[in-house]
Amino acid sequence: MTPARTDHDSRRQDVSEAVWRVLAEHGFGGLTMRAVAAALNSSTGLVTHYFAGKRELIAHALDILEVRTAQRPRQTAPAPGLAALRTQVLNILPLTPDAAAMNRIWVGSWDVALSDPDLFAAQTLRYERVRAGLRTSIEDAQRLGELPDGDSGRLATTVLAFTHGLVVQALFDPDRLPAATQTRLVDDFLAAFTR
Amino acid sequence: MTPARTDHDSRRQDVSEAVWRVLAEHGFGGLTMRAVAAALNSSTGLVTHYFAGKRELIAHALDILEVRTAQRPRQTAPAPGLAALRTQVLNILPLTPDAAAMNRIWVGSWDVALSDPDLFAAQTLRYERVRAGLRTSIEDAQRLGELPDGDSGRLATTVLAFTHGLVVQALFDPDRLPAATQTRLVDDFLAAFTR
Repeated sequence: MTPARTDHDSRRQDVSEAVWRVLAEHGFGGLTMRAVAAALNSSTGLVTHYFAGKRELIAHALDILEVRTAQRPRQTAPAPGLAALRTQVLNILPLTPDAAAMNRIWVGSWDVALSDPDLFAAQTLRYERVRAGLRTSIEDAQRLGELPDGDSGRLATTVLAFTHGLVVQALFDPDRLPAATQTRLVDDFLAAFTR
Repeated sequence: MTPARTDHDSRRQDVSEAVWRVLAEHGFGGLTMRAVAAALNSSTGLVTHYFAGKRELIAHALDILEVRTAQRPRQTAPAPGLAALRTQVLNILPLTPDAAAMNRIWVGSWDVALSDPDLFAAQTLRYERVRAGLRTSIEDAQRLGELPDGDSGRLATTVLAFTHGLVVQALFDPDRLPAATQTRLVDDFLAAFTR
């Protein structure tokens, strides 16, 4: 009934897809109005219609990243406690091509986020939330006797550190760290803490 | 005896310092000819005398990063095996302001390196070398009976993953993760594997 609106929305969706493709291939360093226009096979004039400049482009990129991360396919934990903790870690790792693309963009966003106070604060909060989720599973595992008692907050920091660092190594060495190897490393890691 | 050459070298040193300051504050996303000129309090003309463009500027930045990383102050391991492994990990972490600045630049370089085949290959090799160093200490520790037998290569990957991930969390949350807390996390982590 409102074709103009529909066209606009559809075009907006195309622009978002183009931003995502540029990021996945060239990172934040390659995210320019010109690159998005090229990915859209259009003029930079069209892109400036959506984004006033590079800063707006980056803000939009981080919005897409947040939405796609929230909507990504995830395994459901088979049980609370240790099994849930394992699932949470596996759901972060680059075990599929889509998860690798998303992680590549997250890792790339750290350069931008470390230099922008608002993005920095958002990232700090984000990791607090992720750690809080891990901590809940750790405390469940402690209650269930699957993990020894101890400071659950510190262990959550350790688990997230291991997970993020494995993301980075897997992105830089995908042949050496296919999904099965990453999963094995997670199981060895968790086994060390259950002993 | 060759004042022109000395002036040139000294100016080159000033330019390198300016590149470092821009990186530490604004990351690779903010590393532009204009920003380096501003840090030097000079014209972009001077900067273009040293760098043809952004790509040369990034290559120089990574050279400085490599040199400064190799020359950074490091603790000497008090003994081979587990003590050496602990020292290697602590020598990577952002335990001092200088180490934090260097890590901030390394983390920022991942965005660029993930999109440039040459830089990507260099980074992959670099992590292989770091893992090989960790692996030597792990195998020493196994021989000394400080660590249980097991795949030393996989454990080296796990140790480096934990270390890199802790770098990222400490950069985004320096108040929550001061040097003493990072050190405590390293000791807890290593204790889990020695049990």
